[in-house]
Amino acid sequence: MDIEQVPTKTWPRNAWYVACTPDEIDGKPLGRQICGERMVFFRGGDGKVAALDDFCPHRGAPLSLGFVQGGALVCGYHGLAMGCEGSTVAMPGQRVGGFPPIRTFPVIERYGFIWVWPGDAEAADPARLHHLEWAESDEWAYGGGLYHVACDYRLMIDNLMDLTHETYVHATSIGQKEIDEAPVKTRVVGKEVVTSRFMDGIKAPPFWQMALESAGLPGDATVDRWQVCRFSLPSHVMIEVGVALEGKGGYDADDKDKASSIVVDFITPETETSHWYFWGMARRFAVQDKALTDTIREGQGKIFGEDMEILQLQQRNLDRYPDRKLLLLNIDAGGVRSRMMIDRALAEEAGARQLTQRADTV
Amino acid sequence: MDIEQVPTKTWPRNAWYVACTPDEIDGKPLGRQICGERMVFFRGGDGKVAALDDFCPHRGAPLSLGFVQGGALVCGYHGLAMGCEGSTVAMPGQRVGGFPPIRTFPVIERYGFIWVWPGDAEAADPARLHHLEWAESDEWAYGGGLYHVACDYRLMIDNLMDLTHETYVHATSIGQKEIDEAPVKTRVVGKEVVTSRFMDGIKAPPFWQMALESAGLPGDATVDRWQVCRFSLPSHVMIEVGVALEGKGGYDADDKDKASSIVVDFITPETETSHWYFWGMARRFAVQDKALTDTIREGQGKIFGEDMEILQLQQRNLDRYPDRKLLLLNIDAGGVRSRMMIDRALAEEAGARQLTQRADTV
Amino acid sequence: MDIEQVPTKTWPRNAWYVACTPDEIDGKPLGRQICGERMVFFRGGDGKVAALDDFCPHRGAPLSLGFVQGGALVCGYHGLAMGCEGSTVAMPGQRVGGFPPIRTFPVIERYGFIWVWPGDAEAADPARLHHLEWAESDEWAYGGGLYHVACDYRLMIDNLMDLTHETYVHATSIGQKEIDEAPVKTRVVGKEVVTSRFMDGIKAPPFWQMALESAGLPGDATVDRWQVCRFSLPSHVMIEVGVALEGKGGYDADDKDKASSIVVDFITPETETSHWYFWGMARRFAVQDKALTDTIREGQGKIFGEDMEILQLQQRNLDRYPDRKLLLLNIDAGGVRSRMMIDRALAEEAGARQLTQRADTV
Repeated sequence: MDIEQVPTKTWPRNAWYVACTPDEIDGKPLGRQICGERMVFFRGGDGKVAALDDFCPHRGAPLSLGFVQGGALVCGYHGLAMGCEGSTVAMPGQRVGGFPPIRTFPVIERYGFIWVWPGDAEAADPARLHHLEWAESDEWAYGGGLYHVACDYRLMIDNLMDLTHETYVHATSIGQKEIDEAPVKTRVVGKEVVTSRFMDGIKAPPFWQMALESAGLPGDATVDRWQVCRFSLPSHVMIEVGVALEGKGGYDADDKDKASSIVVDFITPETETSHWYFWGMARRFAVQDKALTDTIREGQGKIFGEDMEILQLQQRNLDRYPDRKLLLLNIDAGGVRSRMMIDRALAEEAGARQLTQRADTV
Repeated sequence: MDIEQVPTKTWPRNAWYVACTPDEIDGKPLGRQICGERMVFFRGGDGKVAALDDFCPHRGAPLSLGFVQGGALVCGYHGLAMGCEGSTVAMPGQRVGGFPPIRTFPVIERYGFIWVWPGDAEAADPARLHHLEWAESDEWAYGGGLYHVACDYRLMIDNLMDLTHETYVHATSIGQKEIDEAPVKTRVVGKEVVTSRFMDGIKAPPFWQMALESAGLPGDATVDRWQVCRFSLPSHVMIEVGVALEGKGGYDADDKDKASSIVVDFITPETETSHWYFWGMARRFAVQDKALTDTIREGQGKIFGEDMEILQLQQRNLDRYPDRKLLLLNIDAGGVRSRMMIDRALAEEAGARQLTQRADTV
Repeated sequence: MDIEQVPTKTWPRNAWYVACTPDEIDGKPLGRQICGERMVFFRGGDGKVAALDDFCPHRGAPLSLGFVQGGALVCGYHGLAMGCEGSTVAMPGQRVGGFPPIRTFPVIERYGFIWVWPGDAEAADPARLHHLEWAESDEWAYGGGLYHVACDYRLMIDNLMDLTHETYVHATSIGQKEIDEAPVKTRVVGKEVVTSRFMDGIKAPPFWQMALESAGLPGDATVDRWQVCRFSLPSHVMIEVGVALEGKGGYDADDKDKASSIVVDFITPETETSHWYFWGMARRFAVQDKALTDTIREGQGKIFGEDMEILQLQQRNLDRYPDRKLLLLNIDAGGVRSRMMIDRALAEEAGARQLTQRADTV
């Protein structure tokens, strides 16, 4: 009865998180803290990516300061060479057979990202990685970036699951008054929390005027606009957004009558009050236009910088008053439901640990 | 007998402090921490200034990131609109009738400053605001600035109530050897601690040579110089300073024979180890000369920057050795008496709280 | 039986540490924290260096902000003048006879350094200062510098007592593959821990090619190279390094057949996780060549900057995982033995304190 039931962390451990992009480990190791664990990522001899504890067992230097040679990660202090499986494979002048192995983390490279499983390695299941249609199809183009944000990763989920903020935070690009006037609807569909908002018969804001024109449609046309935010565990938010010429079916309109895309958000906890934010946009219009990809990336980076500022100051305010209750409004339902899904995952992990502990004591 | 008697803070809460100047809230809200409270200041629909808790009741974002519209303060995250009385007056798509009100702070705008009362709102008494003759009369000109200083506000009071330091800290502008050679006299006069020093038959230091010339008097004349420092609660220090042609009556000399001014210091605690320092000079010579106002402001800003550096390092040294006893010399009497007045106010506030608590339990 | 036996600090207090170099107190006082104590160093009236507690007994300002006048250290705040013996010698308008003296620290100026004894003043014994032949003889030239390093001073000792790291950290200057392939031998000789490594019949790395040429020898010659690291209390590491033409006797070769020097390292703790690192090189070749001294200083500064980076990140990693056990390999014996010598000194100091405390209670 006295078994600890409360999970101590605020994120599920047994899940695939985006750790980095391939260019970040191009020819050199990368040190990054993920879900509280200091990890080093590097590409081994067979081209496969490995993730190890970023702590040399010899003198405790970060292995990420070293270099990759012959498929092993060589410590930059005294030359201990660590293999992808966490065993020391060599060290000048030393026999390394008795060296204790270090922790490794399961890793998958897919969809243009390196994914890591920070929890129990034996529970790591590649089948639990989401399918991402836009990352594999020629009908989509993708561009994105990475921000380090000094706030609880769940504040970012709240932010993305309620786009009312666009009217205020992004007034000059994607915000427009019609957003916070349109009703929002939140529901759980399978393993997703879905928050949707439809705005019919409006003028497109600057970003979407540009998108319409790139898609060969008139930027000043009256349009039907939609936002469909989809949260899934552990912390991914995919937002279907777009505009269609008025009366052509909106979200369901034919491709030739609309400009649409998916705002991609992979939100990877670093500490309890910071996270790595992998953001991007997968679009279905003008997919061959690489210059447009760059333009959108730059614009999106600026817009998401506006979010960062407010989220970081929100975090500091919450830190000052940890006991204050916040309001829960209907616009907050997307965030609330997403957090409930996270809490359930945390409780399941705690339950599983509890069972394991019981088994250990039998 | 077990009622808490020791006030936990180092400043009186029930008092008027300078919060900001009108230009700081010109067309936009201002967030500022005062006496440990995070406040947001803005000008409401009737032009009256309001001060609220800087925490949006919706998601905890700082309200000071928002904007003022129609006399209400609109949160920059999701558009909640807060009225001057701390009630939510509107929010897009929401009925706000049941939203809990947030804390407001009594505010007065007078003498070119916004004053705030961080303590019990029902005790706020406008009559307790000091009268400042120089701020309302045409016979005076005023210029000043604001510094954020990383030390206990009482170290700044000590500094200003003992001008011996001018010889050492401000050797090139207002300091001169005669200051620390002249005896100092400290007494309590009504609600003021007054420390005065008179130096007769001396040469004026650079700043006062300039002042004499601006007043149409010879800069190289032999003069009688005075410094009369007046502390009053909660933390205001007004310093009457000046030079008169030798033998003309010094402090009491006729205006035509002297150049005189008041060094104005409003010292507003932010945290236990930092404060907002509103400094300035009200002068009685060449009051029409706006260029002179700017010149003096620049010079004074430089001089007070010298104080800041030493006070901040003093604070860090005291933090390292919190139990060390300091010397109390006769030159320190101004600061010592001022702190006694503060301590008495703190004890009174503690006593009042105690009585209130007793009444609550009867 | 209940007497505290564990020394609370990680450094011996009763020892001579390098505090600063003479140029650092040329005409002005210097504030520096050494072994946890905030000290101010200045040159008194007779030219002798004094070290005092860096805390004015008047208002707690750092005395190091002041200036030296008439052989006394004058506080920059209110002009209290402190003598070399820690007594207040004057203050404007004050009688200072009753002022309490402040703490002084024993100081010696010798070998081009100011040495301080942070422990019990009565135990300070000038005879315990090491003799440094290279600092007094015309046959040697010296150049060096100072770094502030954010790690436990013992990590620097570990670093210097195992030069295997040169192959990895200093690959482009003094590192070469033969270093980590040559066996290392560690022994205690009197009061020194000595770690030595000999590499015969190799090519000199870039630094030593330059040294050979400066010594009038061919840079591309095959050489015998040596490294003899000598640790002595409290935290000095002198490393004899050099190359001799092959087969001429190596370490024992005649001066005309070799280029040799001593890497000088005085490692002075500041806090438990930071230290002052006085590094330099005393060389026995081309001793008249002042330009060479500058060139070597610059090169050495760059090399030791590489160490700093890795040591500071090692410290941060160790801070994160304070309970992790590190490996102890044969290459680590130099550091391990040196730490044992330090621990013994700490235990002796604790024992001495214990005896003193007993005597006090008899």
